Amino acid sequence: MNGRVTDDERLARAALTYLAEPSDLQLGKAVARDGAVRTLAAIRTGQYAAESRGNPAAKAAAERALARWQVRLGELPDADDLARFRRQGIRLVCPGDPEWPSRLEDLGTAAPYALWARGHGDVRFGCVRSVAVVGSRAATAYGSYVAAEIAATVAARGWTVVSGAAYGVDAAAHRGALGAGGLTVAVLACGVDRPYPAGHKDLLDAIAENGVVVSEWPPGRNVTRLRFLVRNRVIAALSVGTLVVEAGERSGALNTARHARDLQRRLMAVPGPVTSQQSGGCHTIIRDWGGTLVTGAADVLEMVTPLGEAPDDGDPSGGSPGGADRATAGRAKPVLSRDALDLESATVLDALPTRVGIGTTAVAARAGLDPVTVVRCLGALAATGFAERCAGGWRVRRS
Amino acid sequence: MNGRVTDDERLARAALTYLAEPSDLQLGKAVARDGAVRTLAAIRTGQYAAESRGNPAAKAAAERALARWQVRLGELPDADDLARFRRQGIRLVCPGDPEWPSRLEDLGTAAPYALWARGHGDVRFGCVRSVAVVGSRAATAYGSYVAAEIAATVAARGWTVVSGAAYGVDAAAHRGALGAGGLTVAVLACGVDRPYPAGHKDLLDAIAENGVVVSEWPPGRNVTRLRFLVRNRVIAALSVGTLVVEAGERSGALNTARHARDLQRRLMAVPGPVTSQQSGGCHTIIRDWGGTLVTGAADVLEMVTPLGEAPDDGDPSGGSPGGADRATAGRAKPVLSRDALDLESATVLDALPTRVGIGTTAVAARAGLDPVTVVRCLGALAATGFAERCAGGWRVRRS
Repeated sequence: MNGRVTDDERLARAALTYLAEPSDLQLGKAVARDGAVRTLAAIRTGQYAAESRGNPAAKAAAERALARWQVRLGELPDADDLARFRRQGIRLVCPGDPEWPSRLEDLGTAAPYALWARGHGDVRFGCVRSVAVVGSRAATAYGSYVAAEIAATVAARGWTVVSGAAYGVDAAAHRGALGAGGLTVAVLACGVDRPYPAGHKDLLDAIAENGVVVSEWPPGRNVTRLRFLVRNRVIAALSVGTLVVEAGERSGALNTARHARDLQRRLMAVPGPVTSQQSGGCHTIIRDWGGTLVTGAADVLEMVTPLGEAPDDGDPSGGSPGGADRATAGRAKPVLSRDALDLESATVLDALPTRVGIGTTAVAARAGLDPVTVVRCLGALAATGFAERCAGGWRVRRS
Repeated sequence: MNGRVTDDERLARAALTYLAEPSDLQLGKAVARDGAVRTLAAIRTGQYAAESRGNPAAKAAAERALARWQVRLGELPDADDLARFRRQGIRLVCPGDPEWPSRLEDLGTAAPYALWARGHGDVRFGCVRSVAVVGSRAATAYGSYVAAEIAATVAARGWTVVSGAAYGVDAAAHRGALGAGGLTVAVLACGVDRPYPAGHKDLLDAIAENGVVVSEWPPGRNVTRLRFLVRNRVIAALSVGTLVVEAGERSGALNTARHARDLQRRLMAVPGPVTSQQSGGCHTIIRDWGGTLVTGAADVLEMVTPLGEAPDDGDPSGGSPGGADRATAGRAKPVLSRDALDLESATVLDALPTRVGIGTTAVAARAGLDPVTVVRCLGALAATGFAERCAGGWRVRRS
């Protein structure tokens, strides 16, 4: 899958996702100190606790950690299991892989050991310009409408919508992004092979088809109440900013918001009627947590767009004369070096015209790639500022 | 009406409210420099411009001012007119009067020359603890409901509700305060004898009965578009804070909010659905003007209550055990010296029991005052922290 991550390292990280729950700081520190391969070996042989230097309390904590990890040693996958997952379209993304989203390193020793991924989208490229749109499962019609509307508009502007695939606001956000032909990333609290919630099987398949579904848990694992909370830190960490559309005072979305604040991501909330319990958490975020009140996609884009770029840098064909001037004046530069592109994305970029746009089928024919790969690459190229949508289809983004 | 303001001074200030529009800075400066009597004399004799020292531009401005004031010299009232107004229940409140709300001095040379007042409420006492509750004429059912609910709750806690008597949010706020048996002040952009809007004649009479209706314009004057805007600064200046409940982006309530901000009053707004145009101005206040998002009366009271007092210091008989403890711990002290009370209020205060409350009729009998005066004084005493409502009626506020 790449050159830098060895097979041993990949297998070891896969194993760690089986042995420990994510955000196990004992394991995070061990991997940071000794690497995944040595840490796994020390767990297998029972040497882990003995190797731990330090005071008696630290030694006792290491012994407890070893005991809880060894409980699951019988569940470890072998190379055949990983090959079977690959045939099912499930891959493991590890630190050091081109697809690894480096933004996760902000989590420190609570960073994921690895991410399981299913879908055509590239996790790293998809998240370079991404906004988390989250909220209550028990969304009102108002919350679902606003989530879908904002997600559709930011997605049409080349921003990826990250969410948790739950009912309510999450689903509306994913659907809004998909409907606008944009990229969307679902972060699950169970294996990526699990359709959870069951009623979202088709939605998850559509996200995998046009974006990517990721999880810290290996295939087969189920959700638990705690896993949702642990998962939320990844939603916040993957994204430039987190928008809470509707959330009651006790909604899990406030947990995601708290992670976003602690990670110094942009934190935003949509207000609603003060008579609606489902907006109570949003009002708390604005009033007490320093979150920014946003009333629509324009506010969100202004918050997440890097300084010096024009937030409304969208499709010039749809703009007024004044809008076109602004778009020309403030056009974004690509956020990555062209050398950082994978071979397929670089091939698609070479195939794009510079002036009049062409459709995805034409791009596929020029590039000699299948349409699904082309759609994935175009999404990544748009997200990273290399390509843009225009009236005729796709073209190189002018800089 | 008082001891400090001479009849000449009062007649001169009455005349100035006829000659000039409020917030005429040329007149404000002249009155600050020479006093109302000398300024009026200089206008009558035409000496005003000649007396102005300074450069030619300043002299030309003074000449233009003199010309516009002299146009209305024929409209001036005499002592008989003032006596007739008094018989109609209309009084003039001047700087130096016990009833003059000193907070208006924050307006500097744009302070009112005087206030015309109609009603039983005392303007100064009524505004010591007051919140302006303003908003759109075209309020939605949501806005009207929230305005009435918040106004009723803050009024029941002894806070006066100041507003502009317009349709929509203003009317809901006045009605909420009246319904809770609280004090409310209407600031008009026309004479206090004018029922404007006409549909609010009964509402204005009820406000005069239980509170007070004030205006910078003399009896008989009509509203104009500009007068509403000029009036708004008085609403903001009279109050500790201004709450905008619902307002479109072009609502006059945003003008009031801007005055509140410029006067360093507390500025607050109620959020609403981002899909509602009537909440757009509120969201701008929160997002761009530094206004505080409030979701209910508790938030408002927390914002306007002076530091060191408990904002929920209401009727102890209605509180939970925990709430009663908090009320006891944080009970407010009177905000004025007892010596500053007028004779009638001091008499009513002397008539109040210290433990079990008594009704207004009993207070009137003890004090030897008519019930209307007693109600006015009780409102003033509650607003200033001397008296409080309790289960049995009224009693001295415990400190």
